[in-house]
Amino acid sequence: MTANAGALSRTAFPQIDGLAYGGDYNPEQWSRDTWRDDVRLMREAGVNLVSIGMFSWGLIEVREGEFDFSWLDEILGLLHDNGISVDLGTPTASPPAWFFATYPESRVETAEGTKLGFGSRGMVSPSAPAYREAIARISGALAERYAEHPAVVMWHIHNEYGAPVSQDHSPASNVAFREWLRERYGSIDALNEAWGTAFWGQHYTEWDHISTPAATPTVANPSQKLDFHRFSDHQLRQCFITERDAIKRFSDLPVTTNFMANQHGGVNLWEWAKLVDVVSDDHYLVAADPHPEVGLAIAADLTRSVAGGAPWMLLEHSTSGINWQPTGIAKRPGEMARNSLAHVARGADAVMFFQWRASRKGAEKFHSAMLPHAGTDSRIWREVEKLGADVRALAPLKRSRVKADVAMLWDYESFWAQDLEWRPVDDLDHNERVRAFYERLWRDGFTVDFALPSHDLSAYPLVVVPAQYMLRAEDAENLTRYVENGGTLVVSYFSGVVDENDGVHEGGFLSPLRDALGVDVEEYLPLRRGTSAKVVWADGSSSDADHWQEHLRVSGAEVLARFGEGGGKDLPAITRGSHGSGHGWYVATRMSTDALADVFRGVYADAGLTPRDLGEGLEVVRRESDADAFTIAINHSETDHELAVAGEDLLTDERAESFTVSAGTVRAIRTSRH
Amino acid sequence: MTANAGALSRTAFPQIDGLAYGGDYNPEQWSRDTWRDDVRLMREAGVNLVSIGMFSWGLIEVREGEFDFSWLDEILGLLHDNGISVDLGTPTASPPAWFFATYPESRVETAEGTKLGFGSRGMVSPSAPAYREAIARISGALAERYAEHPAVVMWHIHNEYGAPVSQDHSPASNVAFREWLRERYGSIDALNEAWGTAFWGQHYTEWDHISTPAATPTVANPSQKLDFHRFSDHQLRQCFITERDAIKRFSDLPVTTNFMANQHGGVNLWEWAKLVDVVSDDHYLVAADPHPEVGLAIAADLTRSVAGGAPWMLLEHSTSGINWQPTGIAKRPGEMARNSLAHVARGADAVMFFQWRASRKGAEKFHSAMLPHAGTDSRIWREVEKLGADVRALAPLKRSRVKADVAMLWDYESFWAQDLEWRPVDDLDHNERVRAFYERLWRDGFTVDFALPSHDLSAYPLVVVPAQYMLRAEDAENLTRYVENGGTLVVSYFSGVVDENDGVHEGGFLSPLRDALGVDVEEYLPLRRGTSAKVVWADGSSSDADHWQEHLRVSGAEVLARFGEGGGKDLPAITRGSHGSGHGWYVATRMSTDALADVFRGVYADAGLTPRDLGEGLEVVRRESDADAFTIAINHSETDHELAVAGEDLLTDERAESFTVSAGTVRAIRTSRH
Amino acid sequence: MTANAGALSRTAFPQIDGLAYGGDYNPEQWSRDTWRDDVRLMREAGVNLVSIGMFSWGLIEVREGEFDFSWLDEILGLLHDNGISVDLGTPTASPPAWFFATYPESRVETAEGTKLGFGSRGMVSPSAPAYREAIARISGALAERYAEHPAVVMWHIHNEYGAPVSQDHSPASNVAFREWLRERYGSIDALNEAWGTAFWGQHYTEWDHISTPAATPTVANPSQKLDFHRFSDHQLRQCFITERDAIKRFSDLPVTTNFMANQHGGVNLWEWAKLVDVVSDDHYLVAADPHPEVGLAIAADLTRSVAGGAPWMLLEHSTSGINWQPTGIAKRPGEMARNSLAHVARGADAVMFFQWRASRKGAEKFHSAMLPHAGTDSRIWREVEKLGADVRALAPLKRSRVKADVAMLWDYESFWAQDLEWRPVDDLDHNERVRAFYERLWRDGFTVDFALPSHDLSAYPLVVVPAQYMLRAEDAENLTRYVENGGTLVVSYFSGVVDENDGVHEGGFLSPLRDALGVDVEEYLPLRRGTSAKVVWADGSSSDADHWQEHLRVSGAEVLARFGEGGGKDLPAITRGSHGSGHGWYVATRMSTDALADVFRGVYADAGLTPRDLGEGLEVVRRESDADAFTIAINHSETDHELAVAGEDLLTDERAESFTVSAGTVRAIRTSRH
Repeated sequence: MTANAGALSRTAFPQIDGLAYGGDYNPEQWSRDTWRDDVRLMREAGVNLVSIGMFSWGLIEVREGEFDFSWLDEILGLLHDNGISVDLGTPTASPPAWFFATYPESRVETAEGTKLGFGSRGMVSPSAPAYREAIARISGALAERYAEHPAVVMWHIHNEYGAPVSQDHSPASNVAFREWLRERYGSIDALNEAWGTAFWGQHYTEWDHISTPAATPTVANPSQKLDFHRFSDHQLRQCFITERDAIKRFSDLPVTTNFMANQHGGVNLWEWAKLVDVVSDDHYLVAADPHPEVGLAIAADLTRSVAGGAPWMLLEHSTSGINWQPTGIAKRPGEMARNSLAHVARGADAVMFFQWRASRKGAEKFHSAMLPHAGTDSRIWREVEKLGADVRALAPLKRSRVKADVAMLWDYESFWAQDLEWRPVDDLDHNERVRAFYERLWRDGFTVDFALPSHDLSAYPLVVVPAQYMLRAEDAENLTRYVENGGTLVVSYFSGVVDENDGVHEGGFLSPLRDALGVDVEEYLPLRRGTSAKVVWADGSSSDADHWQEHLRVSGAEVLARFGEGGGKDLPAITRGSHGSGHGWYVATRMSTDALADVFRGVYADAGLTPRDLGEGLEVVRRESDADAFTIAINHSETDHELAVAGEDLLTDERAESFTVSAGTVRAIRTSRH
Repeated sequence: MTANAGALSRTAFPQIDGLAYGGDYNPEQWSRDTWRDDVRLMREAGVNLVSIGMFSWGLIEVREGEFDFSWLDEILGLLHDNGISVDLGTPTASPPAWFFATYPESRVETAEGTKLGFGSRGMVSPSAPAYREAIARISGALAERYAEHPAVVMWHIHNEYGAPVSQDHSPASNVAFREWLRERYGSIDALNEAWGTAFWGQHYTEWDHISTPAATPTVANPSQKLDFHRFSDHQLRQCFITERDAIKRFSDLPVTTNFMANQHGGVNLWEWAKLVDVVSDDHYLVAADPHPEVGLAIAADLTRSVAGGAPWMLLEHSTSGINWQPTGIAKRPGEMARNSLAHVARGADAVMFFQWRASRKGAEKFHSAMLPHAGTDSRIWREVEKLGADVRALAPLKRSRVKADVAMLWDYESFWAQDLEWRPVDDLDHNERVRAFYERLWRDGFTVDFALPSHDLSAYPLVVVPAQYMLRAEDAENLTRYVENGGTLVVSYFSGVVDENDGVHEGGFLSPLRDALGVDVEEYLPLRRGTSAKVVWADGSSSDADHWQEHLRVSGAEVLARFGEGGGKDLPAITRGSHGSGHGWYVATRMSTDALADVFRGVYADAGLTPRDLGEGLEVVRRESDADAFTIAINHSETDHELAVAGEDLLTDERAESFTVSAGTVRAIRTSRH
Repeated sequence: MTANAGALSRTAFPQIDGLAYGGDYNPEQWSRDTWRDDVRLMREAGVNLVSIGMFSWGLIEVREGEFDFSWLDEILGLLHDNGISVDLGTPTASPPAWFFATYPESRVETAEGTKLGFGSRGMVSPSAPAYREAIARISGALAERYAEHPAVVMWHIHNEYGAPVSQDHSPASNVAFREWLRERYGSIDALNEAWGTAFWGQHYTEWDHISTPAATPTVANPSQKLDFHRFSDHQLRQCFITERDAIKRFSDLPVTTNFMANQHGGVNLWEWAKLVDVVSDDHYLVAADPHPEVGLAIAADLTRSVAGGAPWMLLEHSTSGINWQPTGIAKRPGEMARNSLAHVARGADAVMFFQWRASRKGAEKFHSAMLPHAGTDSRIWREVEKLGADVRALAPLKRSRVKADVAMLWDYESFWAQDLEWRPVDDLDHNERVRAFYERLWRDGFTVDFALPSHDLSAYPLVVVPAQYMLRAEDAENLTRYVENGGTLVVSYFSGVVDENDGVHEGGFLSPLRDALGVDVEEYLPLRRGTSAKVVWADGSSSDADHWQEHLRVSGAEVLARFGEGGGKDLPAITRGSHGSGHGWYVATRMSTDALADVFRGVYADAGLTPRDLGEGLEVVRRESDADAFTIAINHSETDHELAVAGEDLLTDERAESFTVSAGTVRAIRTSRH
């Protein structure tokens, strides 16, 4: 079951035995002696794939148009001789010093007019003609030389598109923005209408008068800013396509680029997934999160969902602490393996790290690695070796597919729009809402597919909508049909507000879902910070809520609970509409994962779902191949749990009718489907 | 009684029956069908005045010098046909795209050198010659065309001068600043003396070496910054005058512009009030304020005071929540009416909103309106209709004047100076002090006129000085004479510090008021944050205080209380001087509204004032015409209160010897003065 | 005993009788009448030295190359006639308006590209050729004219080098940075190696491609930023040398400039101290510090240490509150004297203030002064007079030297490196660690010399290393030899991490000190904020700790305590290694001054030191001349303490076998050493 109808049906994957295991490898930082040490240790750890070259433009194209492939020839040969395959990167995420010096006008310009220079991780303007030309040249040159190299099994274009900067106000960006808008709108009148330029006197008569939304006296036109988000994403995709096409002229190997799923909101992965042969993701635990395994699950489910359910590659994660968060928390013993195998459970057929060997210099020397500064006499190295063996043992999982229970909407464009300025309060947080609802499902043992509101959702008994501020009329119709045909829909507050141009729907807030839900919204009633919006149920019991209330206008829904405090006291808080043969629930306030349990009892009943009574902290996901089912159980807790699944644990070769999943460990049980 | 001697005696007011009721109307955002809907609903709601055109420059002057008045003709005709008058705006607060494209050098430049572009609410440099020329042209063109239009009853120049930017560091601003300084000082020596340029080596020998106080290595010369405030205000006033004079060539209708009283500190309304025919104000509740009705009262009293006591127009407020504060709190049922009528109580003869119909697009679509997104089947619309009827019923109030009891000083120039960097602590807050003292008076039932220290204050029994950091010697003499002649003066700490150039008075802090108060200040003793400055009275009782202490030098005053804690322990805290036949009180620490009650018992006794024992949350203000007195009572609380005033309630037509003011409601009692 | 081997042996000091007493004097701000008043009051207060001229460039060089010395001649004569000597300043910290106007390209440019203009305390680019030429001209002109003036006893170059801006990204700075790098590295390959440019694709092929680390898309190369710190310091030193050499052409008087010891981290005072004839310091209490006397002691010890133990001059401190901190706390009665005499106790032979007379205008009018705005009828003036007498009485201390007990490392370069971005956590704070360890020693009655890790430390029984992130291999060898030869070394966490280029040491964190300590670090384990890292000792007792833990790899050290909580639970927390005849202690977590008492009991035992049981808040320091020992005791507490030292109190002329040091007072006991 997959919701991402737009994604290509995928069979591409790099030619490797079993699952991929390895990481980013930056031989340019090390001596030839270290290279030999590296390949020996890679073999010890079971590494079968490394990503190479992402930051070596200046060492390959040493002057504009002048190439030196010697060191790359050498390391590829050495790796190949040792049976290690290569995911060969294009180095376009960081153009060399000579590029910045020759084409200073290609630099990214901030909204305040500061030009961002060389000496960092140095992206330039994705709209700069000189950059487009240069990336085609370097990508093509690499592909031409290494298309037939026996070590190379995949192309890795660029690195983390959109990081560290995704928006650019340089002159080139302004020119391209105007072209993009002309393409999008056809006429200046259409643009004026879409952007609502009548407000605050922003009417345009000439395309040339339009600029990127750089610094202005107060907030800029929100529709313009939303389009600038779309444009910025589009320009990055054009860069990707430029490189991909340059490579495809010489090579048929699969092409990927590393996404950042839920960790970078600047690019619309639903569109990007259509462009790659294999979907890949980078994921880093959020140190401040007391339950980072839930954030990890969201990332993995989202990656799999944009991939249309196909196996994907975890191209980067960390063996332990990272350097760029305020507090870089080290992973506890066993945590790295739990993280890695949780990604596998949710569809990854590759477990890769940033990076193989910790860098002695540069900005990320305090980022953990497979081979730490402390060397092989270290906890991390011993766990890396053990994980290599585990990954090898999981080869039977390859190409099997994850079985999801529930769909949840995740719409980058809506998030971009919601995050603009001057909403009713300044701390509406879609990620927080997604997390609260997702964690409810995670704790109840359900696996989630993410989807767009335009997707065919008919196969899911339940669709959860935590934050869909922007909802096109036709997408609202899609959701309405879903309910009409028997589906159960749960919608959270501040959804269904605007159309694709950030214009409030005629008829008012939530009006496009009035039929599906039996309510719409008369007025938003944000709460004074620090106050409560208690929810009182018909039976007199209550649930905690805060931050937000709405004044609902009920047109047929059953009012299940009302507000017990706040400006909305006595007004409806939670409603259940009936439409066709399905039900539309609406939650008009902010409820925590705990409090949502009171809502979801009824939701599950409507959807015909039964929560799984797993032990606390036990994560269980199912992958299926034609012949087998695989149950991966990860125990994040400090107590042992029982798992009532019969079969063979691929990690220990044990066979049993049920298994104990010891505290902190993982089981991967294979069961025949026949 | 009025303190603003500088204000013109005013009789001008737009020709409308009764009080004005309506709001900003932006027909350019809507279809012709919606226009017809709008005028029908305006009539239903009792709207008799709308403000039009403030953001439509580009739709009128479609190319430089090329005008299209067709749509404006049409909507003015439609409004007139429906009996709705028009406050016609000049659209100069947001020049069109073609202006920015043609005159990019006119853009505002920040202190850091960023040029602020188009696409927002787009003010340009008020000093730019191209802008001055353009505003004269558009204002004149509008006046020429519509001077005789029967719908038009008033001119509304620009919008909220000073917002969103009031200071500009562009080349044009630098040129104009130098001209302004040359005018002000005559000689470069005089400037060096005024600015104290001997400090830190800032001596000037040439006018051309002077620039606006843009980015510097550390804090800039405070006298220069103060003059830049004055200059910036002056330039905006010159823009106003340019437009006003262009209009007056064609029209005798009253001219206004919408002030922001206590909500934007960038312009000196005492000076602005001299330039307009009618004073107008915009006011928005501060959502974070638990008692926003007190802030509203300050705004209204200040507006009336700068108007010299003449009736004024509330040109903008909101029907409910607003979008540009961190948390946009919706108004509770009845709150909009209480707000509107509190403005009327304090002198407004117009109740207008931003805006008539909620915008579907743009930056302010989450700002409430008279006609909300939810349409007419909504609480807001029903209250708007009800308020229209109430306003109509209050027609007898028209042109009556508010009776104030007490004067309080409010000096924009002093506030500008106090807010500069490197005062003894970085969180001295004049607004906080004004609020604390004002709220004391509000709770005790007194109505306040605001005044400058140069005004004739002799008619007031009590003058309160919450924050007068800058005090010219001649103004100190005025206050001293006030005391000498029997007045009661209450002065709060950090007053009387500097002269008009931000130079400390010779003789030390507070020395200009030494005669009036019988104390001056030897040294400031700010408190470590989080510590207390308890005040202990002669009888051993104590009052809370914090943040600030002073080392007073007593020269004749009676020491009423001393500090009980902090670095100033045992030093005098509250003193009462006697001078001539009056008394000068000094409060050398920060006391809350509650604690100030302990001070004001004695102050009222000296001033011969008796606090009114109104119920908690009952606001009572008196307006008087030649024939009648009007007592407006607004009950902000959730309990009913009694009002011992005999007469006729204009809102209900009830007549009685006394009235119950029910929780959350308003009474407007007319009593004959004869 | 002195650790700063690099410092010149110093005998230079201005020719004054006794200790110097006075302050900055800015006659250019005052009238001739005031001048006469000033010198009269200076005599009353015992002032014998004033600093003049630091901010008067534009009043001397009135146009480029055109000088007016008349007013300076006059004031110098007046001072000389009254027996007051002059420390004559060069005014180069604030170039005049004509300089900015003539050489706008000399302005400092921020990383974001903002050019910092005139009108403040206006430093320009220290790399600008026009500035270098101008400072040579003005310094030489002053020296030529006043070299033989009888009032002038010392040259005071510039003011507080590095404040308010120390880094500059102007074109001139870019040119100079490239020259400096070429000098430092010789070849571009060496630079690439040192900076680790292979990381993130930052390889250089041309010197001209290198720029200052201005704005970049994300964090810039840390080695480049570290070199930019070094370069920026170097450029300021070149400016100093330019002026010094211009002066030395005409004058043999001692030359100084005012340092800011521990209050400005931008300049490396170990290098600066080699350039001056007399070391001087400015010190201001940190208002937020509840025990500012400890911070003062650090400043004084550090100043004396960079001076190689020679007497130094306190050129600026304050009589009371200051204006540029968030809360300017006034000094309590007696506190100014305690501060002044604590500086003298720790080696100062001068007590000077900013400034003589409080400025009426400008940015610092709320800075306290010797003569306050309130005039001579004030607590401050009375205490200034009293202090003048005290300082005069302390003349016998002149040229005596402080006797220190313990060495502590203070390495500006290491601090620069540690403060760069993307360390394991973003709030590692070397100052906090220095303070915690220093305060432990302060409370235990020990006096501290600061030192670099390259210094000869053999004379100290104990060397404390609170924060030595950067540790060159040869310096680690120096410390190892120190232990080997019997020394006791205490090292705090996150030390010994990188080499001089910010490259992690091969062998891992702390590996250079593995021999000395018997441990190194496998992994850093920062704690989640708000959690604890309790330390449990072998005997079961525990001490508080937080913020940080490490995973130590023990190679011979004794484990004295382990972690009781956190991710490092049960791992070693505090160890004691034995190497040669000494001991190396390691503390792998953050412990407060209180908790460190549990560590230092054992440390003192190893070092053969006995803590002095002084009363709480009693600071005792010893200075020695050939003939005498001086015990200065400062009682910061509110209770009296006994001091068991026999001799004569210079301040009261009392002689006794022991003394009571009353609450808040100071004793200075002279004892013969024979």
